[in-house]
Amino acid sequence: MTITPYQLRQKIRNGNMTTNTSGLCSGFVQGNLCILPQDYANDFLRFCHLNPKPCPIIGMSESPGDFRLKSLGQDIDLRTDIPQYKLFENGQNVAQVNNIEQFWRDDLVAFVLGCSFSFEEALLADGLDVRNLSERVNVPMYRTNIACQPAGPFAGNMVVSMRPYKPADAIRAVQICSRFPSVHGAPIHFGDPAAIGINDIATPDFGDSVTINAGEVPVFWACGVTPQVAVEQAKPDFCITHAPGCMLVTDLNNSKLSIL
Amino acid sequence: MTITPYQLRQKIRNGNMTTNTSGLCSGFVQGNLCILPQDYANDFLRFCHLNPKPCPIIGMSESPGDFRLKSLGQDIDLRTDIPQYKLFENGQNVAQVNNIEQFWRDDLVAFVLGCSFSFEEALLADGLDVRNLSERVNVPMYRTNIACQPAGPFAGNMVVSMRPYKPADAIRAVQICSRFPSVHGAPIHFGDPAAIGINDIATPDFGDSVTINAGEVPVFWACGVTPQVAVEQAKPDFCITHAPGCMLVTDLNNSKLSIL
Repeated sequence: MTITPYQLRQKIRNGNMTTNTSGLCSGFVQGNLCILPQDYANDFLRFCHLNPKPCPIIGMSESPGDFRLKSLGQDIDLRTDIPQYKLFENGQNVAQVNNIEQFWRDDLVAFVLGCSFSFEEALLADGLDVRNLSERVNVPMYRTNIACQPAGPFAGNMVVSMRPYKPADAIRAVQICSRFPSVHGAPIHFGDPAAIGINDIATPDFGDSVTINAGEVPVFWACGVTPQVAVEQAKPDFCITHAPGCMLVTDLNNSKLSIL
Repeated sequence: MTITPYQLRQKIRNGNMTTNTSGLCSGFVQGNLCILPQDYANDFLRFCHLNPKPCPIIGMSESPGDFRLKSLGQDIDLRTDIPQYKLFENGQNVAQVNNIEQFWRDDLVAFVLGCSFSFEEALLADGLDVRNLSERVNVPMYRTNIACQPAGPFAGNMVVSMRPYKPADAIRAVQICSRFPSVHGAPIHFGDPAAIGINDIATPDFGDSVTINAGEVPVFWACGVTPQVAVEQAKPDFCITHAPGCMLVTDLNNSKLSIL
């Protein structure tokens, strides 16, 4: 029996689902969450605008204090509808919780950023393997030497995710992902990891390593961990994000993000 | 002073221009020519249909004996409007001429196939280098081990052209060329030449070698020499093609070939 995104969010809100949303509500957009005080929000918005490939905004609060984001789904409450949240003070992770009602403030601005689940679904639908899914691990992610455009206190190098493909499949993946600019779009590099400052492909900085078979090359996409790194560097006095893999499940169809 | 495609064709027809059309009438589609007796035309059409990436048809005779191809331009006469033709008998090149009026037959069917000039122009317009152009040589072309789908006597392996790019530029080239399926479309391979049966990248089977700089990978496109190889293999009793680089210059804008 399938469950709608609305039903899943209600279940999360009622405390009946507190884990990873990967693979749930297939066909619907899931998003990364970043909540910042108003004093930081304008710079963060500018950072995302300057770095759209790692930081594609698919929704944000209409005004400070707004936790609804009506554009992303029916009756969304960002304080209760995500399975796990991480709380940061001055850049330090101070808690992980299932509900942020008691931490909500009238000056908080929420951002929802596109996530790779959407394009991975499109790759699978085309018959391409997504190695982190077929090996049932987290996607490998790496810090690069590619500097993001800074905005106020937000800065840092781009983080990338990696999926290995044979060249002909990598070319197809470029075509498929080019249709989805709001979920990281086309890859930013393939082949030699050292060319973008990755010294050891077998040791990702985040996530798990995956098998790269003979004849395959690593293909690298801009990754939504990039804004997290920028936030860690900015050290805002207060910040809330989703916990890795515990996303906001929206009512938007993945296909709605396709520009073609 | 620029010259229109119509004016260039008239100049060629009048014998005042008998050389390479590369770089002339920038912005307009140039095409490969292949003329076959009706007995072979249906199989050749099927071969092109089965192998659209190397053999993209942009025009063909409305009926046997038709040398006009009105859809490609004003007052085109395929017997006179190409600078140099090659004549083949039983697969052997028997002559190279500037005019085929005396060889024309009522059973001949003409095919015009898209050529890489169109997508090279789109790559240049985007600021990408096209190495064969910047080094002022013919593009390097290679026989591969990728078998074409056979049709009647027409068969053989795909021939590819190669242009080197840094990975990020190769990704951009995939995006640009995907918009032009009727001029070979997206690349079919990048990286390891041996993976598609190319033993020595420095020694192309046709054309000239080009420099591959550090950090660049060879990127391979399906090539319009593929149908020529298939015709050589089919050994039709009679066949006429353009001479390399001496193309039909049409009235079609290159941008009209873009599907997006």
